[in-house]
Amino acid sequence: MEEPWSPGLWERPGRFMAAEAGYPEALWVLAGAPLELTVSYRAGTRWGPARIREASYALETYSPHLDRDLEELAIHDAGDIALPLGNLGQSLARIEAALRRPYAGGKRVLLLGGEHLVTLAAVNAALDRYPDLVVVQLDAHTDLRDRYLDEPYSHATVMRRVLDLVGPGRLWQLGPRSGLREEFQLAREQGRFYHDVEEGADALAGQLAGPLRGVPLYLTVDIDVLDPSVAPGTGTPEPGGPDFATLLRALYRLARAGARLVGADIVETAPPLDPSGRTEIVAAKIAREILLAFTGEVAQ
Amino acid sequence: MEEPWSPGLWERPGRFMAAEAGYPEALWVLAGAPLELTVSYRAGTRWGPARIREASYALETYSPHLDRDLEELAIHDAGDIALPLGNLGQSLARIEAALRRPYAGGKRVLLLGGEHLVTLAAVNAALDRYPDLVVVQLDAHTDLRDRYLDEPYSHATVMRRVLDLVGPGRLWQLGPRSGLREEFQLAREQGRFYHDVEEGADALAGQLAGPLRGVPLYLTVDIDVLDPSVAPGTGTPEPGGPDFATLLRALYRLARAGARLVGADIVETAPPLDPSGRTEIVAAKIAREILLAFTGEVAQ
Amino acid sequence: MEEPWSPGLWERPGRFMAAEAGYPEALWVLAGAPLELTVSYRAGTRWGPARIREASYALETYSPHLDRDLEELAIHDAGDIALPLGNLGQSLARIEAALRRPYAGGKRVLLLGGEHLVTLAAVNAALDRYPDLVVVQLDAHTDLRDRYLDEPYSHATVMRRVLDLVGPGRLWQLGPRSGLREEFQLAREQGRFYHDVEEGADALAGQLAGPLRGVPLYLTVDIDVLDPSVAPGTGTPEPGGPDFATLLRALYRLARAGARLVGADIVETAPPLDPSGRTEIVAAKIAREILLAFTGEVAQ
Amino acid sequence: MEEPWSPGLWERPGRFMAAEAGYPEALWVLAGAPLELTVSYRAGTRWGPARIREASYALETYSPHLDRDLEELAIHDAGDIALPLGNLGQSLARIEAALRRPYAGGKRVLLLGGEHLVTLAAVNAALDRYPDLVVVQLDAHTDLRDRYLDEPYSHATVMRRVLDLVGPGRLWQLGPRSGLREEFQLAREQGRFYHDVEEGADALAGQLAGPLRGVPLYLTVDIDVLDPSVAPGTGTPEPGGPDFATLLRALYRLARAGARLVGADIVETAPPLDPSGRTEIVAAKIAREILLAFTGEVAQ
Amino acid sequence: MEEPWSPGLWERPGRFMAAEAGYPEALWVLAGAPLELTVSYRAGTRWGPARIREASYALETYSPHLDRDLEELAIHDAGDIALPLGNLGQSLARIEAALRRPYAGGKRVLLLGGEHLVTLAAVNAALDRYPDLVVVQLDAHTDLRDRYLDEPYSHATVMRRVLDLVGPGRLWQLGPRSGLREEFQLAREQGRFYHDVEEGADALAGQLAGPLRGVPLYLTVDIDVLDPSVAPGTGTPEPGGPDFATLLRALYRLARAGARLVGADIVETAPPLDPSGRTEIVAAKIAREILLAFTGEVAQ
Amino acid sequence: MEEPWSPGLWERPGRFMAAEAGYPEALWVLAGAPLELTVSYRAGTRWGPARIREASYALETYSPHLDRDLEELAIHDAGDIALPLGNLGQSLARIEAALRRPYAGGKRVLLLGGEHLVTLAAVNAALDRYPDLVVVQLDAHTDLRDRYLDEPYSHATVMRRVLDLVGPGRLWQLGPRSGLREEFQLAREQGRFYHDVEEGADALAGQLAGPLRGVPLYLTVDIDVLDPSVAPGTGTPEPGGPDFATLLRALYRLARAGARLVGADIVETAPPLDPSGRTEIVAAKIAREILLAFTGEVAQ
Repeated sequence: MEEPWSPGLWERPGRFMAAEAGYPEALWVLAGAPLELTVSYRAGTRWGPARIREASYALETYSPHLDRDLEELAIHDAGDIALPLGNLGQSLARIEAALRRPYAGGKRVLLLGGEHLVTLAAVNAALDRYPDLVVVQLDAHTDLRDRYLDEPYSHATVMRRVLDLVGPGRLWQLGPRSGLREEFQLAREQGRFYHDVEEGADALAGQLAGPLRGVPLYLTVDIDVLDPSVAPGTGTPEPGGPDFATLLRALYRLARAGARLVGADIVETAPPLDPSGRTEIVAAKIAREILLAFTGEVAQ
Repeated sequence: MEEPWSPGLWERPGRFMAAEAGYPEALWVLAGAPLELTVSYRAGTRWGPARIREASYALETYSPHLDRDLEELAIHDAGDIALPLGNLGQSLARIEAALRRPYAGGKRVLLLGGEHLVTLAAVNAALDRYPDLVVVQLDAHTDLRDRYLDEPYSHATVMRRVLDLVGPGRLWQLGPRSGLREEFQLAREQGRFYHDVEEGADALAGQLAGPLRGVPLYLTVDIDVLDPSVAPGTGTPEPGGPDFATLLRALYRLARAGARLVGADIVETAPPLDPSGRTEIVAAKIAREILLAFTGEVAQ
Repeated sequence: MEEPWSPGLWERPGRFMAAEAGYPEALWVLAGAPLELTVSYRAGTRWGPARIREASYALETYSPHLDRDLEELAIHDAGDIALPLGNLGQSLARIEAALRRPYAGGKRVLLLGGEHLVTLAAVNAALDRYPDLVVVQLDAHTDLRDRYLDEPYSHATVMRRVLDLVGPGRLWQLGPRSGLREEFQLAREQGRFYHDVEEGADALAGQLAGPLRGVPLYLTVDIDVLDPSVAPGTGTPEPGGPDFATLLRALYRLARAGARLVGADIVETAPPLDPSGRTEIVAAKIAREILLAFTGEVAQ
Repeated sequence: MEEPWSPGLWERPGRFMAAEAGYPEALWVLAGAPLELTVSYRAGTRWGPARIREASYALETYSPHLDRDLEELAIHDAGDIALPLGNLGQSLARIEAALRRPYAGGKRVLLLGGEHLVTLAAVNAALDRYPDLVVVQLDAHTDLRDRYLDEPYSHATVMRRVLDLVGPGRLWQLGPRSGLREEFQLAREQGRFYHDVEEGADALAGQLAGPLRGVPLYLTVDIDVLDPSVAPGTGTPEPGGPDFATLLRALYRLARAGARLVGADIVETAPPLDPSGRTEIVAAKIAREILLAFTGEVAQ
Repeated sequence: MEEPWSPGLWERPGRFMAAEAGYPEALWVLAGAPLELTVSYRAGTRWGPARIREASYALETYSPHLDRDLEELAIHDAGDIALPLGNLGQSLARIEAALRRPYAGGKRVLLLGGEHLVTLAAVNAALDRYPDLVVVQLDAHTDLRDRYLDEPYSHATVMRRVLDLVGPGRLWQLGPRSGLREEFQLAREQGRFYHDVEEGADALAGQLAGPLRGVPLYLTVDIDVLDPSVAPGTGTPEPGGPDFATLLRALYRLARAGARLVGADIVETAPPLDPSGRTEIVAAKIAREILLAFTGEVAQ
Repeated sequence: MEEPWSPGLWERPGRFMAAEAGYPEALWVLAGAPLELTVSYRAGTRWGPARIREASYALETYSPHLDRDLEELAIHDAGDIALPLGNLGQSLARIEAALRRPYAGGKRVLLLGGEHLVTLAAVNAALDRYPDLVVVQLDAHTDLRDRYLDEPYSHATVMRRVLDLVGPGRLWQLGPRSGLREEFQLAREQGRFYHDVEEGADALAGQLAGPLRGVPLYLTVDIDVLDPSVAPGTGTPEPGGPDFATLLRALYRLARAGARLVGADIVETAPPLDPSGRTEIVAAKIAREILLAFTGEVAQ
């Protein structure tokens, strides 16, 4: 009905590159969750989903590293989840509700944030289908506080809440270089904690060949895991992180180890904080490589 | 096919606010033409259509001045016209081809630029249907050069080419405050030239009640007609223009005089040149007021 | 204890200019409330209080218009109210609690936002002491929705909640030029609505000489009442507002009419959205003029 | 020697538009003085001369208001005066020395700042040739402090120093809206002070037809005399000034009254503070209009 | 004629640092080509030449790595090539015409872009004199498409056109990490392709000691070959590239191998896209190191 | 007196994180010196102290690398040293006078610049107490010119003046990659010069275990020692420096070697030049690590 009248001449913006599949036939569902309610320093993540989609057109659909092309995948871009203003509980409930159906249908979901709290809702949705889910966190911060400024739900407590959900030993943390002393202690005791992302990816890859073989994985990439020189457009940049190539190597390591990725997110991209516009391109390229690297056989 | 699975939870960005109608039932067709090839000073108009659509959501669909609401109109947002890179002739041909059909179908078109040259293609498309078209130009510049740096087609010559098309006396110029001595001479001789936009609107309104009653009008708004304090995001800001309220008064004046607007454009909005982001909001509000003010009976 | 060791050589930043009084002797208490939870378009108001204080040093303490000097007033800068992240109800409760004491002590309060919802908490605090409070709103938006995206508390509903508190006829709205049709109807029916700020100030001044003589006034200035050319650093700039001199004339008009101002706020200043940095200077100058213009005899 | 080998193909940037005359035949000498040493709030004026020259190419050489063209004038762009770093006295001495010769040769000088202190050096140079010089200051600030932070030479004291030089009654101040109470008192007593620039221009024009007929005038335009919405790129923007058209009307008023302008400057343009880039265009257009409006018969 | 009157006091901006030689005696000719017509994503390269020249003054003329100084070289800065607006064919023709003479005169040319298409014109000019030219491309993109959006000439096809000119095996590509699958296939088959710039430089250096000894080299540096953290100011930044030191090492490797560089360009620097201003400094430093490293004996 | 009335609810900004100690009990005194008078290229260091303090709240007080927490240290934030405008000699005298007392009292001082010249005053103050002071400079530039544009005191000569004070062999220079040939010769002859910061730190650490055991050290960190990708917000960014982790490793190396740090500064941070805001976070993190790493036993 709404099709333009002379198709060859028209472009319709708004989708991630090559995400042209309809929902029914899609293997991957891409969605945005522009949540931004618990920011402590600088804002802008609400613009993440829209700008990452737009930035994807600065890239090619083909990855020379992987020799694969997004055009060979069935990806559905579902748009953004509509969120009520200023209501955190309701927002998380809507995200969870929205994502429950694709997970139930065996589809994989790539969620674009928005602040890190969206991961809590996404993991909740995935757990329904995959009760033995293991979560891999790439992040500059531990995010393991129990409370932050008295609040149990915030970008600084999100992984503690995730840890509550999945249970000890099922959260792998790669990259944290900032947090309270207590958080690092907890990380070392209960999580699987690696300051160095490549070392952590190696360790996890080893397990994927052993005790964790076939386990469903959820990957959450906080863009601030990268050094701020690589991804300055984020709320709380933490100097001293890995460069882009190092991050990709860690992801490739997991993919080559046969990781069964069932869901993922890329969060904390705050485009207005990076006038050079490269952070959203970085996020879009990570999205492309995740989509391409982890698409293999997902046994049910 | 591509409908999201739980409609109430999802938003799909990319359209101008309230432009939800399908093409067949639309009264107005809104389209983008991100052309940017003959820029002489600073670039950015290629981002005009996308950012104006996005900025429209900072506004309401209701105009208290006019006591009308966009939601009461059938508007179709057709997306952007696909343009080849670096090929000016081909680009203009595509724009003209794309717009010919809605004009033929009796629809009105609001085109979002892009640089001012898109007006030439749009007027060409409209002339097919409305051979007696009168063009109203709101602009800081005369744009009446015959050649600019030896080239016949550029943002500085566009209205000369339009004048060639519609013929002497059928181009009304409101607002120009910059140009060559020769351009001002030509403007005074052949066009209908008014430095003051309100004075010009009054004069034209007078004619619309007389000799020009019922004549089809095409309105081209170069955003730089406004003072740069109001619309800094444009390639060649020219200090000394009217403020926003003055511009709207001029438009309302024409509408109240019963102008029969069949097409319009808003051009030269260059969002990257205005980090405050207000220029695209200004453009979106002008678009809203044009859509609302000039929607009356368009007799064929 | 914390005094620097050689006082003449040191500067200690962080306060509004000339706000050097201690709390006990202060006539005015200045406070910040960097709330930002219900933003719908663009963020940045959390930086309002800090940047307005900093910007005040670009101004003089003396107003040639009023021939008065801030150094002649006892002003206490109390700092910012600590707000929990992502918890709207708790945030409003804290602001109200924090402001209740100075109002109880007969002091006047100038609050720097943050988003417009802080006004609801501030009015609540003031009502305790002044049950017959009349609220004057300078704003581009009506802010009279009953719900916004299903939520009763947001920047788009704040004045409806204030109207609920003070009752019909006790809310004067000067300047609104954007809203829903229903909001404008409500504004005209129950509030005191004037699109033109000077006309509204005249009308109110007339009442202050009559039925409203001596009534305690609360003034809320949403910085977006100004045209975006004057104050671009705000979340939802609405083209078509008054310039700076016009706004000041309206304020002077009220002051000359003997308005008994007991509290005020300046909200929605979003410094990161205005790289030229002038919006925070505009806000600081409005703060200075309010402090100077309305300091006369406040009968209890 | 350094001429490019195929002139028609090459452009050599770096000069103000149409300032192509050699020094000997020049009527006007244009020069830059990128001084920036006594900044109290925000920096950037050192980039003024370079960016104003560059911005001039966004304008035409023809002024429709005056119906004159820069190409009809002999203007020499001498480049910038080389200034030592961090040495204020030496810097002022160099500016004065550099400008003494063109004044001695009967040429007129248009100086592009740089901070306002450059006016002191320029007036000193002009006084040698024109001992009866009258200075006209367009400025948001009085700049009449005797000392600022203990220093006698700064942007806040510059016009006091100029007043010391030219003597009481020979300094006309148009536009000031910020200063100490003492400065405004001095302004009213010794200077010729007008808050409103048009009113001041009228008063001066009246004198030019009478007691001041034929007196040599020096005009200093502090760009911050304009409202910050018009010229945000300046160190201490002061809300509440005139718009661009008003400033031009004041200048035209003086020109029509037969003002014998022998020198002028445009100062305090700080391009990095205005990412929209319009402040330097505003400065360039003021420069153009000064050059065109005041070029008549300069009797010696 | 145009010399300033007191030379010691004046600076004349507009040239690259130390490029003070006249054309006849120059060994190197430096020129700008601010072409920008086939941009697909973000614009700004037209400001490349002017800003790179300006940024050069943030650097020293001396390179401690090479222990050489630009002041010891005869460099002529010819300014920018004048380009017609919106006419790609004519623009390329002018660049080629402009550069033909210095190449014919045995001078070396360093061209500052502008978009990458300028390389095509420059190589054409060089081929006249050096029919056995070998081209070395440092780039994030293969640029080997045959058509891009139907056009044969664009920034995405430029090296395919160059390959057409110089023939198989005479194009060395160092650094590409983005392109179509077909482009990488072609790169591997016909070009000399190395993803790793140092590895590629080693391989080429090996040939320069053998089969390619004495062959004339043309070097094109697309600034986006660097990681976007190093050079964010470019149209299509591609995450994952080498850092600055790595790029220099590759250049030094070629220089030490006795490369006979006859021409070079640095393209795609888009200063407006990098508000930190470091990209143009990076480009200026690469220019300095190229000028210094490759100036040895150029046998004819 | 000035305490807010309900302490739990209020925050008072303006100090470096955790710098809550009073002067008497403080081990470290933190002070700002926003000097900016001899800038040659781009300005902004005057905003260094204020923005670094503010940025510190984006970090944690705990360092996982060192397993120490600022909250365990007694740090007094003394505010900024008041500086006269445009008077270099007086400014340096005030900084020296201000810092003399804490040094005399055996406290350690961390100074936040401002431009690099503040180091000269700080070293002068420290030398009074520690005549055998050794200075360690981390910097991209040699800063060893004897004169710069004829001036003996500037950011380009500062370390030459420091060398004059401490004498040959007592200045260690780590990182310089830009300067005149003469400066590098002097650096190699009289200073202790290492292009590679880690290599330099190793060499110095070796001496600290031997001939320099127990010697009082002063550390000056010019933020431009880092690669501009890491710290773009600085006046003269010099491509090709170390990344953040490398810099920290060098500092840790000195700390582990038992360096007796008595004073330090972090200079040339120019926040307005980095819209991403990460440079001030980098500076704040370096400050944190210096405070934590070098706090051990300082024998008198």
